[in-house]
Amino acid sequence: MSLLDRIQNPEVSKETAKKISIVEQQFLRAEVEQLRHAAVTMKPLFEKRSEVINEPDVKEAFWTRVMLNAPAEIEEHITMTDATILASTLKNITVERFEIDAQGQGEPRSFRVTFEFRTGDENPYFENEKLVKEFYWRKQVLTTPKGHKRTWDGLVSEPVRINWKKDQDPTKGLLDLACDLAEAEKKGGNRQELPEFMKVVEKREELEAAAEHDHDHDHDHDEDEECSGPDDSSSFFSFFGYRGSDVTAEQSKTATKEDDERYEKLLKGEPVEEDEEDEEDEDDEDDEIEDDFEEIEIFPAGDELAIAIAEDLWPNALKYYVTDQLIEEDDFDEDIELVEDEEDAPPLKKTKV
Amino acid sequence: MSLLDRIQNPEVSKETAKKISIVEQQFLRAEVEQLRHAAVTMKPLFEKRSEVINEPDVKEAFWTRVMLNAPAEIEEHITMTDATILASTLKNITVERFEIDAQGQGEPRSFRVTFEFRTGDENPYFENEKLVKEFYWRKQVLTTPKGHKRTWDGLVSEPVRINWKKDQDPTKGLLDLACDLAEAEKKGGNRQELPEFMKVVEKREELEAAAEHDHDHDHDHDEDEECSGPDDSSSFFSFFGYRGSDVTAEQSKTATKEDDERYEKLLKGEPVEEDEEDEEDEDDEDDEIEDDFEEIEIFPAGDELAIAIAEDLWPNALKYYVTDQLIEEDDFDEDIELVEDEEDAPPLKKTKV
Repeated sequence: MSLLDRIQNPEVSKETAKKISIVEQQFLRAEVEQLRHAAVTMKPLFEKRSEVINEPDVKEAFWTRVMLNAPAEIEEHITMTDATILASTLKNITVERFEIDAQGQGEPRSFRVTFEFRTGDENPYFENEKLVKEFYWRKQVLTTPKGHKRTWDGLVSEPVRINWKKDQDPTKGLLDLACDLAEAEKKGGNRQELPEFMKVVEKREELEAAAEHDHDHDHDHDEDEECSGPDDSSSFFSFFGYRGSDVTAEQSKTATKEDDERYEKLLKGEPVEEDEEDEEDEDDEDDEIEDDFEEIEIFPAGDELAIAIAEDLWPNALKYYVTDQLIEEDDFDEDIELVEDEEDAPPLKKTKV
Repeated sequence: MSLLDRIQNPEVSKETAKKISIVEQQFLRAEVEQLRHAAVTMKPLFEKRSEVINEPDVKEAFWTRVMLNAPAEIEEHITMTDATILASTLKNITVERFEIDAQGQGEPRSFRVTFEFRTGDENPYFENEKLVKEFYWRKQVLTTPKGHKRTWDGLVSEPVRINWKKDQDPTKGLLDLACDLAEAEKKGGNRQELPEFMKVVEKREELEAAAEHDHDHDHDHDEDEECSGPDDSSSFFSFFGYRGSDVTAEQSKTATKEDDERYEKLLKGEPVEEDEEDEEDEDDEDDEIEDDFEEIEIFPAGDELAIAIAEDLWPNALKYYVTDQLIEEDDFDEDIELVEDEEDAPPLKKTKV
């Protein structure tokens, strides 16, 4: 067996695999502990920052400036239209790790993002004064067709409806349909059999086809830009439709308990369930878990974007506020050029630097 | 003044600017404290992991597998040639926050990366058994031509020479020249007047011109790939030539002291030096600090790569080891396909997925 073969398919003994598994678990737990520690120690600082942001000379432009200076993982989801809407309506953003209690205990990976907006005549786009998107860190034990167990964990959320003013919805009705589906599911019935299911699937296909067409069209004129900038077909506001999975708090609790028990057994050197499965060949192509979420997830990168907001934009907001990269630097493929205009909602132009 | 104007050029009172400055400092200090806390609490876990990695069935392939599964910020610096060299020679990587003492005090942002390699006939590329690259977190107060003070802080390092075997240097002599220059500087004399200075500048220009030519050539055949994959002109091994700046430990100490004093004054509400300057228009285009480092820095992204190694590759190495993304996933624009071969140093092919 060549060295490169052994890199590609390392053969590790059962005993070593267990040791790796234990250390992996310990790292994971230490990371969560660090996040909890950071959330607790940083809390008074975030409160102090909120006070400063609330100074009248900062308040008005703070979060729009931060959003327009946002790091690439966020900026790539903000289309020209989104930037225009945000720049003229966004008033405040707050991130709260709401599952951490007063004693500093609880799940630090769950968080709530609250967006506050101008209303009435100051907001030609939608009616909502607040959009509150909650992300719960949940765990799930899934069983593959071959009977293998897989653990999934990640962020779960419910779609949040936006009350768009006439013809202003940049998601082109997709977010509404995602909310309709989630509401219909709550009333019961098999998701795939609900009429709302096909509506989401069809709308997604329709929008993707339109984007594909636009992209081909753009391509003729503008070859250099193919890798840069957000895909205009998917609005930042579709993010409010992100779901992740529909594992319940109950299921998550059970899965976490199972996982903790498995870890305890590992630590004690007792045999654990997955041992035998690990022996099998890893030819799992026909052992995939069917997931109809892929078809109805209107913002598949929602968890990544949420984490970028909670772990980068939120703690580093002051940095993004004071930086001049908005105007001066060329960290992004495209920079946002702010155009002075007398209109209520002046357009923002994205120009290639 | 329009809203968008106020986003672009927020007018903040002197008093508010001070409050922002204080909270900024507090965030920065809290981040450093978190890094210190993490370094101390994670240390026993890293030791435990080292034990597991040292198991005979893991040891041989661990770090090569981790490197070939590396996150995008690292992978983008690994050319085909680099991947071939690393896959057949890399034995171990260690990251140490060497400025943290036994009491958990000290600068947590300085670190040492030690790479260990196969030697003798097992390494057809170079002689070194170890390459040790130290990064010091340093601070510097710079004065602009107009007399304004600017604080710079970041990672500073010394070039590390690699004893290449005949015709095996993927940096094409650039790393050697960078080491020659640093050594000549140590013997004294103005950098720009040293013959070694021009040699580095000229070699960089020569390699850049060659890369430009290759790129144009590639472009004709392969338009889709223009944004993907590393630039083959700049080898990962040039990273060992990164310097950052030549601020000394002494200068850094003085700058840190000045900065701490300024912070204390701010907290007490006493006037601080920069106050008046802040009043001036920020039209600082002709107030740039001249920096001849730009001309001789052979790996300008060295600090970012170093941080990606220390804060991502190192703590998450087990994750990158156990994942199958090397073979299965398409997270990267290009995946590394390992080719079985009887040769001493089999070539690695990077193929588009």
